[in-house]
Amino acid sequence: MIDTVIAADLGGTNLRMAVVTRDGELLYRSRRDTRREGSDQLLEEIVEQARDCLAAVPDRSVGALGIAVPATIDFSTGILKESPNLPSLNGLHLPRLLSERLDLPSFLDNDGTAATVGEHWIGATQGALNSIGITLGTGVGGGLIFDGTPYRGIDGTAGEIGHICVERDGHPCGCGSRGCVEQYASAGAVVRLANELKAFFPGSTLTASTGITAADIYSAGMSSDPLALEVFGVMGSYLGIALADLVNILNPEMIVIGGGVAGAWDLFIGKTREEIDKRSFREPAERVKLVPAKLGDDAGILGAARLAFSATK
Amino acid sequence: MIDTVIAADLGGTNLRMAVVTRDGELLYRSRRDTRREGSDQLLEEIVEQARDCLAAVPDRSVGALGIAVPATIDFSTGILKESPNLPSLNGLHLPRLLSERLDLPSFLDNDGTAATVGEHWIGATQGALNSIGITLGTGVGGGLIFDGTPYRGIDGTAGEIGHICVERDGHPCGCGSRGCVEQYASAGAVVRLANELKAFFPGSTLTASTGITAADIYSAGMSSDPLALEVFGVMGSYLGIALADLVNILNPEMIVIGGGVAGAWDLFIGKTREEIDKRSFREPAERVKLVPAKLGDDAGILGAARLAFSATK
Repeated sequence: MIDTVIAADLGGTNLRMAVVTRDGELLYRSRRDTRREGSDQLLEEIVEQARDCLAAVPDRSVGALGIAVPATIDFSTGILKESPNLPSLNGLHLPRLLSERLDLPSFLDNDGTAATVGEHWIGATQGALNSIGITLGTGVGGGLIFDGTPYRGIDGTAGEIGHICVERDGHPCGCGSRGCVEQYASAGAVVRLANELKAFFPGSTLTASTGITAADIYSAGMSSDPLALEVFGVMGSYLGIALADLVNILNPEMIVIGGGVAGAWDLFIGKTREEIDKRSFREPAERVKLVPAKLGDDAGILGAARLAFSATK
Repeated sequence: MIDTVIAADLGGTNLRMAVVTRDGELLYRSRRDTRREGSDQLLEEIVEQARDCLAAVPDRSVGALGIAVPATIDFSTGILKESPNLPSLNGLHLPRLLSERLDLPSFLDNDGTAATVGEHWIGATQGALNSIGITLGTGVGGGLIFDGTPYRGIDGTAGEIGHICVERDGHPCGCGSRGCVEQYASAGAVVRLANELKAFFPGSTLTASTGITAADIYSAGMSSDPLALEVFGVMGSYLGIALADLVNILNPEMIVIGGGVAGAWDLFIGKTREEIDKRSFREPAERVKLVPAKLGDDAGILGAARLAFSATK
């Protein structure tokens, strides 16, 4: 039984990696920007960084490499099927290419699933039999755990919670649909909502500024700025519509909400809860616990580590 | 190993029962109206009808009783928690009460789950690893099968597909929410839509009639009546929004659509498919098969039988 793995979270902008023990302790961590030039370079960077990790723990016997990727994966073959943000990897048998170079069994998983698994392992949803993870960041991602195990669907694409429709003819989404919750609860959506609503709040400290960020709106909200409070109220309500659907469909024990936008928890969660109570059946609405993520940016790495441990037993 | 069970489908208007073999053959069937006066009467009727079934197959050794009910169930105790249509049963330990009277191990399950299990056993979704069932009738019910097993959620309330929100500020729903797909794809919804839209179709054969039913609208649609075609188009689109959510969240292999309204398949399924293709990710949209239910009114009985066989091994 192996006692240490290398785990990586490969994002559109950076690659984060760590050496992780079976208890979820991070012995060593590193981070670098992701070059997008091509698959060879990206592969080389992953290999280099993994070697740095191996060199950092010379007294440990590292048994596997687990990588969380923003992509769909063919779990029967290990091939990375499609990554909108890292298209150069599409169709690559990443685990095999890495195993050959590093002489380590390597495993891929979807980043939304990995983050949900991480929180379930040693984060906010520990012990929950079934839980749903949702990440409010640049996009809105998600993952599902049923009976303690990741649920992936028939082709490994399950968990696209960010694309639940909350406004039939709503804002166009990058996925090709309209009115996806991602268009109302991501960082970019919060900024767009502020711009759409600012004419109604001439007294807001935000109206004078251009190029505002979701963080600016959060700060203004913490100072009771009325525009910022309205924006997070609207965002929270839309998020609640999507979560109410999930509560009715899946009767989850817990929903863990992470990602940068979740930092504004106190500004939106009241409206989210209100919408769930209004729209879901009473019993599952009362049952579901909404909890903020505990692991922050490490959720994906820890989930990838956990999945690598599971895959190697 | 038992080779025969009695299976029942207890609806708001009638109680249907059958003797079912391990191969899904119905050896004997019966049906009666459901009296709603009280739990004692209802219980007595179930017992009488089960005794009729037992008497009809004197040479068979019946090993269990399985009942599908329109209710939430506490699976740890067997208690029927809440049935909007048969409230006199709320809180009853129905399996124990029936077991005592009939000297047969008895099992409850939710009717939406039972119908989905029936179709998976010997109907339209046989062999599918994960499938979703949706029933378009007086209400819109549903059931989920993951990895070949019914998924019930933490309290047994999962599968309320009829209450996915498809129109944020839409028609009020009996569940307390607004814009649930049940308000656009049930039999009553089809009639309401026809009444809402008839002013736009003065040439329709339906406009002159009062008290039209969903079946009338279906008949008119089959004769190319423009109002009827519009109604089923609208209904199909809304159904598609809900199914697109399910495709994105759960990446199912098959979705089986049953219930009376599903009889109008050719009039709505094109719009449903269109909406899924527009709103879901490409890969799960291409994967999912939409199929009409095969077992008709027997799906619930057959699912209840299957579940009773599983429970007794």
